[in-house]
Amino acid sequence: MTSLPARVRIVEVGPRDGLQNEPAIISTADKIAFVNHLSEAGHTTIEVSAFVSPKWVPQMADAAEVFAGITRHPGVRYTALVPNLQGLARARDAHVDEVAVFPAASDTFSRRNLNQTIDEALAQATQVCREAHAMQVPVRAYLSTSFGCPFEGPVDSSRVAELCARLIDLGTYEVAISDTIGVAHPAQVADVLGHVSTRLPVSKLALHLHDTRGTALVNVYAGLQAGVAVFDASAGGLGGCPYAPGATGNLATEDLVYLLDGLGFSTGVQLEGVATASRTIEPLVGHPLPSRMFRALQATRVRA
Amino acid sequence: MTSLPARVRIVEVGPRDGLQNEPAIISTADKIAFVNHLSEAGHTTIEVSAFVSPKWVPQMADAAEVFAGITRHPGVRYTALVPNLQGLARARDAHVDEVAVFPAASDTFSRRNLNQTIDEALAQATQVCREAHAMQVPVRAYLSTSFGCPFEGPVDSSRVAELCARLIDLGTYEVAISDTIGVAHPAQVADVLGHVSTRLPVSKLALHLHDTRGTALVNVYAGLQAGVAVFDASAGGLGGCPYAPGATGNLATEDLVYLLDGLGFSTGVQLEGVATASRTIEPLVGHPLPSRMFRALQATRVRA
Repeated sequence: MTSLPARVRIVEVGPRDGLQNEPAIISTADKIAFVNHLSEAGHTTIEVSAFVSPKWVPQMADAAEVFAGITRHPGVRYTALVPNLQGLARARDAHVDEVAVFPAASDTFSRRNLNQTIDEALAQATQVCREAHAMQVPVRAYLSTSFGCPFEGPVDSSRVAELCARLIDLGTYEVAISDTIGVAHPAQVADVLGHVSTRLPVSKLALHLHDTRGTALVNVYAGLQAGVAVFDASAGGLGGCPYAPGATGNLATEDLVYLLDGLGFSTGVQLEGVATASRTIEPLVGHPLPSRMFRALQATRVRA
Repeated sequence: MTSLPARVRIVEVGPRDGLQNEPAIISTADKIAFVNHLSEAGHTTIEVSAFVSPKWVPQMADAAEVFAGITRHPGVRYTALVPNLQGLARARDAHVDEVAVFPAASDTFSRRNLNQTIDEALAQATQVCREAHAMQVPVRAYLSTSFGCPFEGPVDSSRVAELCARLIDLGTYEVAISDTIGVAHPAQVADVLGHVSTRLPVSKLALHLHDTRGTALVNVYAGLQAGVAVFDASAGGLGGCPYAPGATGNLATEDLVYLLDGLGFSTGVQLEGVATASRTIEPLVGHPLPSRMFRALQATRVRA
């Protein structure tokens, strides 16, 4: 266990990546309450929303209102996705603590999801980084489909490494290597991280995992063993996969916290607090949240 | 990855540990069809049933009829649980290839689940082993609640090690260290295996994991890294946990196969074949099977 990082940070993406993929539209007040519960759970980074076109992502149309309504806890970063300079301007007006750009590692996914080639997405990310730095707003990067593309299949690890290096060169402080469709397994995590580590220190990397095939937590463990110390997760496992209807979504925060607690990492995130947030959102999305740990906690409550 | 075992074997426990914990009673014909699908999926060991009191476990009352009805594939071991000499006699009459005894590592669980102290259960296991060896029937051992007890909480790792050693001394060929209530995390898996390895070669050990808190697959990975090469799993993740109603049951075979395929192990078990077995049993148990990989495969079928 000597190679494990000293500290681990969780990035809670439930309000954005989670809700974005849920078909039921959640009211602004309910989103605000959800974010507030997540702050109370001890999270230090919460991805609150996305300043994207409401035509593309109706669930995120009230991003400004959600930011205006949440209670900001000291020391917590409230972040948002921004695809371009218009999004960045809206994010600045909403006093967002940090923004994220989100190019993809696969050209077909980039064209279908962002209506841009990878190079066009990187050019736009360059503009966002330059302007955000002038505003002193930190920029995080996601690199979507780093472990596989729903259209192209496998993605070359050295291509992922090159794109991660370019994103850091643009001035993003961290790249969240993203398994958008939840196909990764630990050997692939080790392979991708090995390639990326030839270009960047591991301290610049996060893992953003989906649990579509049940491998999110074991991939976290492989990431920890490679020195990664930042993991994205979504309360209750909120968020489906748009390319596999009915399939499981993001790595669940409860599952991640149970693992990290067991491994002795103190993230400051309280399992019961996250479950409280999940309990408020579950009836609103209209289906049982898939987190195993959340389900075990719920079963215990029913029994008690 | 140098410490990983060369070969991995899966023990399919869906027809026994899976169905035993499902409230819906499955017909004998449906159980036979389920086992036959699992044989066709490429399994080499299938735990078919248990020769226990039908008053305690009604789902297993037709053990002899199931054994009589299944198509036995060459090279496949069809096994059953036996608690005592009566069960062993019934198992012999049913031409079972291998039997298993199942003492626990926690006294309270042993008394509540088996109505025996640990010592009484070991005395009965001794009788079963002696008689089974006279019949030339191999005996496997489960050690229940090795990672935690629903009544006592944590279980001492050196106690687990001592009990594993005693079970091997009795003549069982392998001990499946069992996380009956699904509380284990990888650090605990490493700790327990570390303790047991001081008493026994790792080749005598298997892991029997439940996914109640989402950690089954990451615990498999920790087990692999400690040299364990045998893992129990249940098609579709069949089987709840009697101590946490509504919670997830056994490690799902589909999730395990996806992991092992990704890590390059060829177990001979075909993912699609297992999913076929799960598809036949899912409507009969009356709830969606929890395996993430199975759900992803089902979602793809719906979309196609």
